[in-house]
Amino acid sequence: MLNGKKSVLVINGPNLNLLGTREPQIYGHETLADVEASGKKQAESLNAAIDFMQSNWEGAIIDRIHAARTDGTDGIVINPGGFTHTSVAIRDALLGVEIPFVELHVSNVHSREPWRHHSYFSDKAKAIIVG
Amino acid sequence: MLNGKKSVLVINGPNLNLLGTREPQIYGHETLADVEASGKKQAESLNAAIDFMQSNWEGAIIDRIHAARTDGTDGIVINPGGFTHTSVAIRDALLGVEIPFVELHVSNVHSREPWRHHSYFSDKAKAIIVG
Amino acid sequence: MLNGKKSVLVINGPNLNLLGTREPQIYGHETLADVEASGKKQAESLNAAIDFMQSNWEGAIIDRIHAARTDGTDGIVINPGGFTHTSVAIRDALLGVEIPFVELHVSNVHSREPWRHHSYFSDKAKAIIVG
Amino acid sequence: MLNGKKSVLVINGPNLNLLGTREPQIYGHETLADVEASGKKQAESLNAAIDFMQSNWEGAIIDRIHAARTDGTDGIVINPGGFTHTSVAIRDALLGVEIPFVELHVSNVHSREPWRHHSYFSDKAKAIIVG
Amino acid sequence: MLNGKKSVLVINGPNLNLLGTREPQIYGHETLADVEASGKKQAESLNAAIDFMQSNWEGAIIDRIHAARTDGTDGIVINPGGFTHTSVAIRDALLGVEIPFVELHVSNVHSREPWRHHSYFSDKAKAIIVG
Amino acid sequence: MLNGKKSVLVINGPNLNLLGTREPQIYGHETLADVEASGKKQAESLNAAIDFMQSNWEGAIIDRIHAARTDGTDGIVINPGGFTHTSVAIRDALLGVEIPFVELHVSNVHSREPWRHHSYFSDKAKAIIVG
Amino acid sequence: MLNGKKSVLVINGPNLNLLGTREPQIYGHETLADVEASGKKQAESLNAAIDFMQSNWEGAIIDRIHAARTDGTDGIVINPGGFTHTSVAIRDALLGVEIPFVELHVSNVHSREPWRHHSYFSDKAKAIIVG
Amino acid sequence: MLNGKKSVLVINGPNLNLLGTREPQIYGHETLADVEASGKKQAESLNAAIDFMQSNWEGAIIDRIHAARTDGTDGIVINPGGFTHTSVAIRDALLGVEIPFVELHVSNVHSREPWRHHSYFSDKAKAIIVG
Amino acid sequence: MLNGKKSVLVINGPNLNLLGTREPQIYGHETLADVEASGKKQAESLNAAIDFMQSNWEGAIIDRIHAARTDGTDGIVINPGGFTHTSVAIRDALLGVEIPFVELHVSNVHSREPWRHHSYFSDKAKAIIVG
Amino acid sequence: MLNGKKSVLVINGPNLNLLGTREPQIYGHETLADVEASGKKQAESLNAAIDFMQSNWEGAIIDRIHAARTDGTDGIVINPGGFTHTSVAIRDALLGVEIPFVELHVSNVHSREPWRHHSYFSDKAKAIIVG
Amino acid sequence: MLNGKKSVLVINGPNLNLLGTREPQIYGHETLADVEASGKKQAESLNAAIDFMQSNWEGAIIDRIHAARTDGTDGIVINPGGFTHTSVAIRDALLGVEIPFVELHVSNVHSREPWRHHSYFSDKAKAIIVG
Amino acid sequence: MLNGKKSVLVINGPNLNLLGTREPQIYGHETLADVEASGKKQAESLNAAIDFMQSNWEGAIIDRIHAARTDGTDGIVINPGGFTHTSVAIRDALLGVEIPFVELHVSNVHSREPWRHHSYFSDKAKAIIVG
Repeated sequence: MLNGKKSVLVINGPNLNLLGTREPQIYGHETLADVEASGKKQAESLNAAIDFMQSNWEGAIIDRIHAARTDGTDGIVINPGGFTHTSVAIRDALLGVEIPFVELHVSNVHSREPWRHHSYFSDKAKAIIVG
Repeated sequence: MLNGKKSVLVINGPNLNLLGTREPQIYGHETLADVEASGKKQAESLNAAIDFMQSNWEGAIIDRIHAARTDGTDGIVINPGGFTHTSVAIRDALLGVEIPFVELHVSNVHSREPWRHHSYFSDKAKAIIVG
Repeated sequence: MLNGKKSVLVINGPNLNLLGTREPQIYGHETLADVEASGKKQAESLNAAIDFMQSNWEGAIIDRIHAARTDGTDGIVINPGGFTHTSVAIRDALLGVEIPFVELHVSNVHSREPWRHHSYFSDKAKAIIVG
Repeated sequence: MLNGKKSVLVINGPNLNLLGTREPQIYGHETLADVEASGKKQAESLNAAIDFMQSNWEGAIIDRIHAARTDGTDGIVINPGGFTHTSVAIRDALLGVEIPFVELHVSNVHSREPWRHHSYFSDKAKAIIVG
Repeated sequence: MLNGKKSVLVINGPNLNLLGTREPQIYGHETLADVEASGKKQAESLNAAIDFMQSNWEGAIIDRIHAARTDGTDGIVINPGGFTHTSVAIRDALLGVEIPFVELHVSNVHSREPWRHHSYFSDKAKAIIVG
Repeated sequence: MLNGKKSVLVINGPNLNLLGTREPQIYGHETLADVEASGKKQAESLNAAIDFMQSNWEGAIIDRIHAARTDGTDGIVINPGGFTHTSVAIRDALLGVEIPFVELHVSNVHSREPWRHHSYFSDKAKAIIVG
Repeated sequence: MLNGKKSVLVINGPNLNLLGTREPQIYGHETLADVEASGKKQAESLNAAIDFMQSNWEGAIIDRIHAARTDGTDGIVINPGGFTHTSVAIRDALLGVEIPFVELHVSNVHSREPWRHHSYFSDKAKAIIVG
Repeated sequence: MLNGKKSVLVINGPNLNLLGTREPQIYGHETLADVEASGKKQAESLNAAIDFMQSNWEGAIIDRIHAARTDGTDGIVINPGGFTHTSVAIRDALLGVEIPFVELHVSNVHSREPWRHHSYFSDKAKAIIVG
Repeated sequence: MLNGKKSVLVINGPNLNLLGTREPQIYGHETLADVEASGKKQAESLNAAIDFMQSNWEGAIIDRIHAARTDGTDGIVINPGGFTHTSVAIRDALLGVEIPFVELHVSNVHSREPWRHHSYFSDKAKAIIVG
Repeated sequence: MLNGKKSVLVINGPNLNLLGTREPQIYGHETLADVEASGKKQAESLNAAIDFMQSNWEGAIIDRIHAARTDGTDGIVINPGGFTHTSVAIRDALLGVEIPFVELHVSNVHSREPWRHHSYFSDKAKAIIVG
Repeated sequence: MLNGKKSVLVINGPNLNLLGTREPQIYGHETLADVEASGKKQAESLNAAIDFMQSNWEGAIIDRIHAARTDGTDGIVINPGGFTHTSVAIRDALLGVEIPFVELHVSNVHSREPWRHHSYFSDKAKAIIVG
Repeated sequence: MLNGKKSVLVINGPNLNLLGTREPQIYGHETLADVEASGKKQAESLNAAIDFMQSNWEGAIIDRIHAARTDGTDGIVINPGGFTHTSVAIRDALLGVEIPFVELHVSNVHSREPWRHHSYFSDKAKAIIVG
């Protein structure tokens, strides 16, 4: 809770900064900046606050999650990108700060390489949204 | 398309008729009838049509999906229940009628028994919603 | 509880209607009807009631289990036959109605094909009786 | 044996009723009715009888196989469709009635998903015809 | 056969001497001595003889089974405890003396650790009783 | 195409030269020479040509397949015998010459040792005939 | 608790009696007797009591653990040697007497054969000390 | 060796900075700062030097280990946290600088998720201390 | 070396005392005593000494191997029976006393249950003789 | 393309900065600086440009690859070091910028630990050079 | 049987012609020719005949085994070398001619690479001799 | 060494004689003869000698490698084609003659069928070049 508004932290993992420039036939033409702008507007209309963060660095994402423990964050939406399948440390960070989180993927990981089927986040997520 | 409205078929698989009476501390007190009623209302406000169907019989679900091929259904939302992990036949039916579908689960299958982690639907679904 | 008597539902899965006619050197000459008749007599002498049901239809077994939730059944004895190894849906039905059940097999599944060693029922059964 | 004619039962499993309407570039334009008509003609010229049966219901297929035990059927040709990989119950029905059977597939299951490589029928079939 | 009575040997493996003192909420308050006393009484009323044996030593159990080959034992009931999952040597002893045996467990091994699901005895037992 | 006739090459792999002398109760009394003779006669009546080849040498079979690329062969029927489960090199030869082929087995490999269930040919064959 | 002193039982499993005589370049020249002597002295200085026990016999170790239930033992330190990877029965004994235990290894089992990586004790130990 | 004192580097991996604030019923109320303070005092009394380092960044930990090659560090104690199960790069750094290290965990990883049972460090550690 | 003779210790594991009485059609009619008598005679003619030992107790076998370290034994021949597949402790004893050993089986373990294919002795044996 | 020269980016992953100082008997005495110097000279003689980059930080490598998308890089040579086996995020970065890459290892990963046999890069690399 | 003598065929597979020249510290200095000469002498003294054959060609070995069916061979001793782990065709040849065979290895395959632990011959051999 | 020149043997395995005629869009239009001619010219300019050999026969390749032991060959470059994944015998030949070898593939085996990912040569090769 921040100034009487619900506060949501949206984290985008590695390579999601390429959104809108990479393989537009799959991911569409909207860039990450576009997504963030429209997200902020929609949040304001609901009297809520969204904070966006993107990083290709696992350590930066962990530090940001730790900060959320004391900055009034009520919930986290995370698209861990390639870290979905490899980062026990981000999982532990999310569990350590005890803030509920939703796992989100922009493409269907179940239609891709077999090692993309395992996620270190799904069994602890409040919800999972794919596609 | 049916009378100028988008038409959606919602299929609930085995045991989902028990909703609201089974383990309310997990699934809540809303029955399947409640869910269907509020779903219909919301669809009308959007000038869309929803058709609900529930069955414990694998054959009945397959027949219903086949019917959807010619009755104007634009999309299917399916919660396959226990058939999620075993029914190649329903998967084949969905692919055979070539109607896009969304896979939906009311509880997080990733926090349960390991054999509930595999779904015969996820790699073909347009979207997956869990929890 | 039905009329002051303990009430037990006995369910026999697919192909058990062949009992007594199929491979008598293995299964003996007693038919399913014989088994049911003697079972009913023994129950009466104990002031209990037994209801028998056999079906080759997975959906029918699920419906019967659902009915047991409100007809006073105190316990279920189930021989799932071939569904032992494949039916997540019947497992879910048994768990959904929250009636304790015993798993029963007339031949030793552990001496047969490897895929008969896995049961979707054993970890939830109150007891297991084989052979 | 029926009226001095060899009697063959041909069973088609789930989704095969879609033949001719589903993906004609793969399966051709012949419908199941066409296949059955030409099959019957060819059988008559050989003084044999063919009985066709198609169902999306596992229970219905099992009942039909049980009936074959006493109606003079000399052999069964079965295309189990999606049940190939999951139905222990149909396998048990075929073994229970002790009528020799041939397993048939219209597409090459070995070029498809890995879980289609396992069949519950192949080790007991008199012959297997693929493609 | 011993003095015209059927003779049964009951073997309890390691840690079963703790029965009644260990976790009574799970195993009940009856000690192994109680179980043996009531078992002997019941056997006498049926003009049969029961011999009980408990040991935490694998070698002692093997020696006792060997002795059974020549002391008139007609059948063996064995609860191998922790040896269920590890002792090929006891299995070989039971097969070597060629006396039919029943495998028995007082708790449901299928609801416990995965490595408790495998038994070196089940495929050769005349019957298995769990729970 | 050879002299206006369809030209088929039939290749038999290792140990098939023992046909008719090995375990006649399983394989019958017809020798490989008998099979080839009747095959040739039947081909002539259809105005087609069959060329037979048998070898216990993997290299010889590969060389023969390479030759087929330029000698007018329209199709290949191959029973790879024991090479079915081990020869990537013969598979590559068949794909390299780009002649369609049919895989053939005289006994049901699915009823035998587990390592006979895998074939390096089935996923590329136009058809598979077993038994 | 024994005479107002903390009482610790130290159990050494099979082959640890060879300590100091076997491969001294790896395990050093100190014998098991040396280790026990210095252990006892250190315990006395802390007003605690240590009881040492070594056996190559699984049954003897189980019996000793059972005795610990009533002889005032407050904690157990166990180096199960080769039984680490094979003895469900010793694990069950430790859990049955409900005395907290520490698992100890004198060489690093993780640098050795793969089947030495699994321990039947680690998931229940209060602490694990290796090397 | 630094100024005639043994020099030990203690590395704590990701999320260990949360110690004392996260789930105190499991990990206790002592913070990482407390642990470091008492560690330094104990080292001084032994005329040794301890250097502490904590980071959520894999690259920072690797850089610190590289620096240890030339700053006189005699030994490393590392609690890799979530990197235990995922970081080949930290393992390679420890082996590359050729300084002996001890692996340490504050909770028993063997009682947790199965993928926490594998460590990229254990087979090379001089010692392992858990719990 | 004992009195100028080569000294060989022959160890027979569990159930081998049944030799000659168990399934004579497989193992022949010679008892273990017969085998030992003729073995001793043959050894004398070669001016060597053989000591035989049989036990169903794992601990007894380990103790006997330890004794061999100082009683002049030059080599060990061991048929571990059922312990072949389960005893890490006997393996460690053989390696600990550093006496070369030969592994011997009287029936072909490779034609039996799959879990009989693994031996804890084969990779360290000087030679292996089966059948 | 940069100033009419082909432009190649060479990335060295974690611990490769130790080259020439670590285990020189394996990797030789040439340092990373030596390698880069001679690489630059050779490139100039071919009128090409090489840019070298080394980092122990996964995020830094990803950022550098992203920069390559717009700085005229024509190809990437990457030795991912320990990240070879763990970094889905670097793989995704390489695919996202759509620049062809070659995978390079200075030692033979196939002669080392089994988990070094899998690479997240090999199936997408234009070429692989080992040793 | 040949001229009243027992006739034994000894087959040595690929690379065994290098015996005595390859790694003599492991295999000794005796060449294959030496082994054959002394084998023939010993056979004559027993009024038996031995025929030796060595080949690096799988097809040549199969042809030789086929010839043994009619040339009076009573038994085969085969060291399949590298073909032990790959040749289904030689296995089929041995089974096809129905001559009992013994499998022999000059070095202990169980101490080498894991894929050398599986043999296509062991489950059918009359005896196995290793080392 | 041959006449003061370094001598290299280049071996091409099965189906590589089709190079330039098979799927030129993948492998290019250069035939094996072209490759060999330009290779020889380049070797001469370096005062070295190259000997080329191609065979579809495993035995011929083994014999050629054996010959290399005494004909002055200093190194071997081998593209084992389909034998990469199946020939233990060629591997043993290369190790037996103790000549260093390089493994080479013209297409990226890691982007193809999973069973092409395993090589019997990679762990022993001095270098591996793919693509």
